[in-house]
Amino acid sequence: MNFRMIGKINAFLLLIESAFMIPALIFALYDRDLAVVRAFLLSMGIIVAVAVVLYLLCRNAKKGFYAREGFVCVGLGWILISLFGSFPFWLSGQIPNFVNAIFETVSGFTTTGASIVNGVESLARAVNYWRCFTHWLGGMGVLVFLLAIAPIGGDSEGFTLHLLRAESPGPSVGKLVPRMRRTAGILYIIYVLLTFVNFLFLLCGGMPAFDSLCTAFATAGTGGFGIKNDSLASYSPYIQNVCTVFMLLFGVNFSCYYLILLRQVKNVFKDEEFRLYWGIVVAATLLITWNLRGAATALGYTSFGETLRHAAFQVSSIITTTGFATTDFDLWPTFSKTILLCLMALGACAGSTGGGFKCARLLILIKALARNIRQLLHPNSVKVIHINGRKMDERTISNTNAYLAAYVAVIVVSFLVVSLDHVSVLTSFTSVLACMNNVGPGLDAVGPTCNYAGLSALSKIVLIIDMLAGRLEIFPIMILFSGRTWKRY
Amino acid sequence: MNFRMIGKINAFLLLIESAFMIPALIFALYDRDLAVVRAFLLSMGIIVAVAVVLYLLCRNAKKGFYAREGFVCVGLGWILISLFGSFPFWLSGQIPNFVNAIFETVSGFTTTGASIVNGVESLARAVNYWRCFTHWLGGMGVLVFLLAIAPIGGDSEGFTLHLLRAESPGPSVGKLVPRMRRTAGILYIIYVLLTFVNFLFLLCGGMPAFDSLCTAFATAGTGGFGIKNDSLASYSPYIQNVCTVFMLLFGVNFSCYYLILLRQVKNVFKDEEFRLYWGIVVAATLLITWNLRGAATALGYTSFGETLRHAAFQVSSIITTTGFATTDFDLWPTFSKTILLCLMALGACAGSTGGGFKCARLLILIKALARNIRQLLHPNSVKVIHINGRKMDERTISNTNAYLAAYVAVIVVSFLVVSLDHVSVLTSFTSVLACMNNVGPGLDAVGPTCNYAGLSALSKIVLIIDMLAGRLEIFPIMILFSGRTWKRY
Repeated sequence: MNFRMIGKINAFLLLIESAFMIPALIFALYDRDLAVVRAFLLSMGIIVAVAVVLYLLCRNAKKGFYAREGFVCVGLGWILISLFGSFPFWLSGQIPNFVNAIFETVSGFTTTGASIVNGVESLARAVNYWRCFTHWLGGMGVLVFLLAIAPIGGDSEGFTLHLLRAESPGPSVGKLVPRMRRTAGILYIIYVLLTFVNFLFLLCGGMPAFDSLCTAFATAGTGGFGIKNDSLASYSPYIQNVCTVFMLLFGVNFSCYYLILLRQVKNVFKDEEFRLYWGIVVAATLLITWNLRGAATALGYTSFGETLRHAAFQVSSIITTTGFATTDFDLWPTFSKTILLCLMALGACAGSTGGGFKCARLLILIKALARNIRQLLHPNSVKVIHINGRKMDERTISNTNAYLAAYVAVIVVSFLVVSLDHVSVLTSFTSVLACMNNVGPGLDAVGPTCNYAGLSALSKIVLIIDMLAGRLEIFPIMILFSGRTWKRY
Repeated sequence: MNFRMIGKINAFLLLIESAFMIPALIFALYDRDLAVVRAFLLSMGIIVAVAVVLYLLCRNAKKGFYAREGFVCVGLGWILISLFGSFPFWLSGQIPNFVNAIFETVSGFTTTGASIVNGVESLARAVNYWRCFTHWLGGMGVLVFLLAIAPIGGDSEGFTLHLLRAESPGPSVGKLVPRMRRTAGILYIIYVLLTFVNFLFLLCGGMPAFDSLCTAFATAGTGGFGIKNDSLASYSPYIQNVCTVFMLLFGVNFSCYYLILLRQVKNVFKDEEFRLYWGIVVAATLLITWNLRGAATALGYTSFGETLRHAAFQVSSIITTTGFATTDFDLWPTFSKTILLCLMALGACAGSTGGGFKCARLLILIKALARNIRQLLHPNSVKVIHINGRKMDERTISNTNAYLAAYVAVIVVSFLVVSLDHVSVLTSFTSVLACMNNVGPGLDAVGPTCNYAGLSALSKIVLIIDMLAGRLEIFPIMILFSGRTWKRY
């Protein structure tokens, strides 16, 4: 194991993190909130100190960097930035409990948006800024950022490949392979631009600049931290609709935007995952609108348009695993809640900032299942699976199957541990589902009007691991905790 | 498609079914319950008539019989015997609603044990006998029975293989391959003997002969229909413990008993699935007993022994997917309920009469997952999976993965449809889980003290399909409904 290289990369990650705290520090200075200024300064100091020591220790790193190093580096890196990223919350006293502070930070970086804060409106502005910014940074990936800007590791494709593979979500369908480092840069540019457009649209709707900035960050990362106690319920229908559209846009595979830049719009609309994703969004919205028709009056929706708006918003928020809410969907009828639960588990497209199982994997599983049935009927037939007209690698299929198995396993084990808490079955199940898939709100005691503060420390720690496992797609975290990884070869 | 052969086999199945109604008829005659006598006579008449017509139409069947025919034959056969098996319930007026009568029959044959009868004690004895007997017949499989006794199809191994494969549960791990037809006979002999021993043990505990017979049938098939309103709660601790032991014994792969007959006891204890199964049973029992320590008094358990007895009984009942109850586990703390939910989904061993996902599949998935992680770390390594010291066929692994995908898909779709009913999320989810895995009772409104009578007809139809899909392990039912199956080649 090339510990030095891993240490060196992590030192850079920490430096980036501390640099990104500067805007929050400026907000705190502007607001003259001394406790918060002190907290940010102290945090940055500690982070830079640790980074420098780490860098000095690991300066003379060897070149060798393989899949194993990639996974360990990503897993460790995310744990480190979460740990140090929680310092401002904790040191400022805004989130005095350390487990809670870590929970909030991991929830931020993993773009989950599950909160333990009882009244977000009473948090300092700088702290709210940092909360929402963690979404933005975590959404596209902090290592991707590092690769896009820093010359670390040289031009070795293997190095870049192993890091990107371990951090980027989804199976490798239609990857933009050549020149990975340049690709990382392009992806980040698209990401920044889209976020900025989102910010402008919110601003035009009369949303205050600070709110617009934070909301754009949380939307872009498909995170879901709100800066109001009622999430987005009190904003205008225009703002809510803007969020609906942008959540959905950030749930699309970013390679589609790259294709649009290359003027290959036709290929985007032919993309099977793209079509599946939008098909599911439309179907789910219509089904929920239909299901709510009887309950609309009781829920306070005065028109068909309002019902449709709430349905579309919640569907977008859940399938993209953002987790914003404009209404308390825990009060919806069982069918609507069940649709949301299914969307929670499914998630957005591969290569987007959204979490969950991913539409691309669903597509692969459906096709693999259909093939399997054909093979049962005709045992000697051999069929290749095609996605977007291209042959699917058998290893991708077996990885997807393994992912499903790992996914179910992590959910079952977490569900068992969280159920030790004195909460309902629905609470423990949906809290695991919502954290594992980086959604945020679940149902019952972790519903959209509630939060995770009431859970025990043990449950919170399990959910922290779930959030990380969900964001990094399980294997880096599994590998980090597996004895075999640390064995010498 | 060889329709004639399929028709011929189904004619034999129906004849067997009508023959097995004779004991029920005798009970009805003995009780001088004329309405029930008439219902059974009429049912038998209809079934024999249909069987004879079917036989005459399909007399001149060709020899060709492939995997496709096997699946269709098993799928159709189960639908037919369920349809006609419901006639006595319906015609006697004991279950006047036809959908309910079908639900009860499918629940019987698939060894689910989910009931729509509000007071089983008021049913006629003959009807209760037939209910419990369907468990016994469905447990080992009615086609297996046919193959064991009838010379149909000649000595063609392919013929027998395709039928057995489609009806027998579990992936083919350590199958008893040579001479399949003889094997079917041996399995049935073991099954009859174990049922008889179970019957004797119950009789010795002072249980009335009729109760012992019905309970032995329901235990052997891991079905779970009780003949008392409170299932087994009012019987003595001795009877309950006997049931615990025999439920677990019927959840073991029957090839283990075959090995014991061959004096290879050592191989039984070395069997990885066998060890996993007993390990889970012991662990779950201890965890639940520990979890109940605080709530025991409130639940009315007066001693540690009583708590342990209830824990062991419920664990055995759920993991073997029997579904008997001695206590209302819906009142247990969340952790205990969660363990039961996991056991519901897991189920017993492959090649037993129990349902569920099966321990053998769990074993394969765990090993495949471990291999996948190793391959992520060392992309060029090639590793074979061993189970019980033997190399595992790659196709079995890919089938197991496909099974997991199909299993999740069926549960999600059913969950969506059932949630259209005005029931809680927990009710709709656990009703699907309990039916799909042939368990019987779920939680909340379908908990052990409730039943399925309150659900809508649509939900019941979906659950009927789920029960059949669960018992036949999904693929025969999927293949039956797939257009491709009916295409001419």
